[in-house]
Amino acid sequence: MPITVVGSIAYDSVKTPFGERERMLGGAAVHFALAASFFDEVHVVGPVGADFAEQDLEAMRKRGVDVSDVERVAGGSTFFWRGEYGWDLNTRETLETRLGVFEEFKPKLSERSRASELLFLANIQPDLQREVRAQLPHARFVALDSMNLWIEIARDSLLRAIAEVDCVVLNDAELRQLTGKPNLLSAAREVLSWKPSETALRGPSVIVAKQGEYGASLITRERFFALPAYPLETVIDPTGAGDTFAGGLVGYIAANRARGLSDELLRRAMAHATVLASFNVEEFGTERVQRLAREEIVARLRELRAMTHFSGAP
Amino acid sequence: MPITVVGSIAYDSVKTPFGERERMLGGAAVHFALAASFFDEVHVVGPVGADFAEQDLEAMRKRGVDVSDVERVAGGSTFFWRGEYGWDLNTRETLETRLGVFEEFKPKLSERSRASELLFLANIQPDLQREVRAQLPHARFVALDSMNLWIEIARDSLLRAIAEVDCVVLNDAELRQLTGKPNLLSAAREVLSWKPSETALRGPSVIVAKQGEYGASLITRERFFALPAYPLETVIDPTGAGDTFAGGLVGYIAANRARGLSDELLRRAMAHATVLASFNVEEFGTERVQRLAREEIVARLRELRAMTHFSGAP
Repeated sequence: MPITVVGSIAYDSVKTPFGERERMLGGAAVHFALAASFFDEVHVVGPVGADFAEQDLEAMRKRGVDVSDVERVAGGSTFFWRGEYGWDLNTRETLETRLGVFEEFKPKLSERSRASELLFLANIQPDLQREVRAQLPHARFVALDSMNLWIEIARDSLLRAIAEVDCVVLNDAELRQLTGKPNLLSAAREVLSWKPSETALRGPSVIVAKQGEYGASLITRERFFALPAYPLETVIDPTGAGDTFAGGLVGYIAANRARGLSDELLRRAMAHATVLASFNVEEFGTERVQRLAREEIVARLRELRAMTHFSGAP
Repeated sequence: MPITVVGSIAYDSVKTPFGERERMLGGAAVHFALAASFFDEVHVVGPVGADFAEQDLEAMRKRGVDVSDVERVAGGSTFFWRGEYGWDLNTRETLETRLGVFEEFKPKLSERSRASELLFLANIQPDLQREVRAQLPHARFVALDSMNLWIEIARDSLLRAIAEVDCVVLNDAELRQLTGKPNLLSAAREVLSWKPSETALRGPSVIVAKQGEYGASLITRERFFALPAYPLETVIDPTGAGDTFAGGLVGYIAANRARGLSDELLRRAMAHATVLASFNVEEFGTERVQRLAREEIVARLRELRAMTHFSGAP
C-alpha cells in the first residue's frame, strides 16, 4: 500500500567526533522515504530551493521514491541545518537553522499523494500536519512525529494533531514533556486516551517511544513491547536515525497491512525499524542507506532476533 | 551451588516523589542476598553496628539467608546512607553517608563462606574485594560491582580486582568512565581483554551493563544480548535495584551452573535478574522482595518473555 510522507527535505552540515560533512542531503522526509522505499511505494511532499541539486532528487528516484510532489521554489533556499555532536553522540547542539523555503510552505498534494493509504507526518508545525491529514481523510494508518519546540510553542495544535492520527512516534523525553508524566508507561497511556472529540471512537492506538541507543518501546492499549537498538561498535552520525526508524516502521506496516494491524505485525515493524536505523548511523547522513541492500536488512534482522530472545524455563 | 556475598549492610533514609522512609534495612549485600535467596543458598559477609536491629537479621534468615558471618561490631554504628530522588527517579542526590563500622572493615570469612562456589563482590573498596577474592581461590564464578568513586580514586586497584573475576556488573556510564570509551560495545570489549597478567588465561568473560529504566545488556566475547526493564507504571524507590538485579543474576547462575555456563543460561539469568529488580522498585527498600513469592517471579518472567519476543519473517 502506497505511503505519503510530508516533511523537510534539507541540507545538513554535521560535525561528529568522527568527521564532518558540509551540506549533505538530509531532512526528515528524505530519511523516512529512503528507509520506507525498501518496503513499499513512497511519495514525498515538501519544498526545496533553487539550490537543491538534481543529483539529490536522483538519489531518491534511484530508490524508487516518487518525488513529483517535491516542489521547487524559484529563488528560494533549501532548509538548512548545522549541528555538532558530543563525544558519546548522545548530545547534540544546533548551531544554525535556516528555514528557507519552509517559511512559506503550504503543502500541495497531488491526486496521487492524496490516494495513499498510509501517511507519515514528519516533524513540522502541527497545524501543517493537520492540514495534510485533512487531505487524506480515508488513510488507513497515519503516524506523526514531533519535537520539543512544538510541545513548547504550539501545544494545543499538537494535541489536536495527535488526536487525529493512529500512531505517535516520539522520543521518550518528548512523551514525558508532552504529558507531564515522568513514567513512560503512564505518559503513553495518557496519549492513548486522547480523542479528536468527546464522542469520537478513534484516536491514537499505537505509541512508539524512541530511546536512542537504548532502542524503542511500543505501547498499545493491550500490550507492551520493547527492543534494544542493534549494537554497533562504530556509530558515525546519528542524524536522521529517528526518521529512518519511522520509515522502516511505517514501510513495513504498509507492505504487510493487508493482513490486519496485529500486535505481531507491529513488533516485526519495530524490528525492521530498528535495523534500518542501525544502518543509518553507520555513516554520515543518508550515505549508508542509499547503498543498502535488502539482504543486509534480512541478515541484521536475524541477528537482532538472536540478540533479544531467550528460552523459557528452567 | 552456594553463593557468598561481601558488601554493605546498611540503614537507608530515602525520599522519593512518592514518600519517604527513615533508617530502613538496605545495603548492597542485603538486596543481593534477598534476591539470590530465591535460587540458592546465600552466605552474607559484612559488618553491622550495635544499632543493628535483630529483626533486620531475622528478615534475612526468614528468606533462608545465612547471616552467621555478619559481624556485629561492639559500640559501632551501622553503615548509613541518606538520599533523595528527582521527579523522574533517574537522578538522585546523596545527602549523607556515614561509613560507621565500614571504616575499619576487614572481611572475615568463615570456613563455610569460603567454601562457596560462587562469589559476589558488591560495591566496596577494590582492595577489599581483592582480599576476599583471594580467600576463595577455587570459586567457579566470581562477579563484581563497583562505582564511579573507585574509578576516580582507586582506579589501579579496581583494574586489578576486575582482572581477577569472571563477571563485571556495572552501569553503562561506569563502563564508559572506566574505559574512556564512549561506545558501550567497545567499552565492554576493552574490559573483556583485561587479564591478571600477560600470561594468564583467565580474565572477565561476561560483562553486564545495567541501564536503569532501559534494562540491561550482556556482552561476552562471542555474543550480545539485551533486555528492556520490565515496564512499571508505579516505581516507588529505585534504591537497591542494581544489587537486586545482581542477586537474581548470580542466584540463577548458581542454581543452574552445573550444566555449564552457556549463553542460554546467562540469558535466562538476565531475565530473572530483570524480574527481581522490577519487584524491588515497586516499594521502598527491601519491602517488596521480602514478601515476594516464587509464583510471582515465574509469572512476570513469562510476561517479560512475551514483551520482548517477535516472530521471524515474512
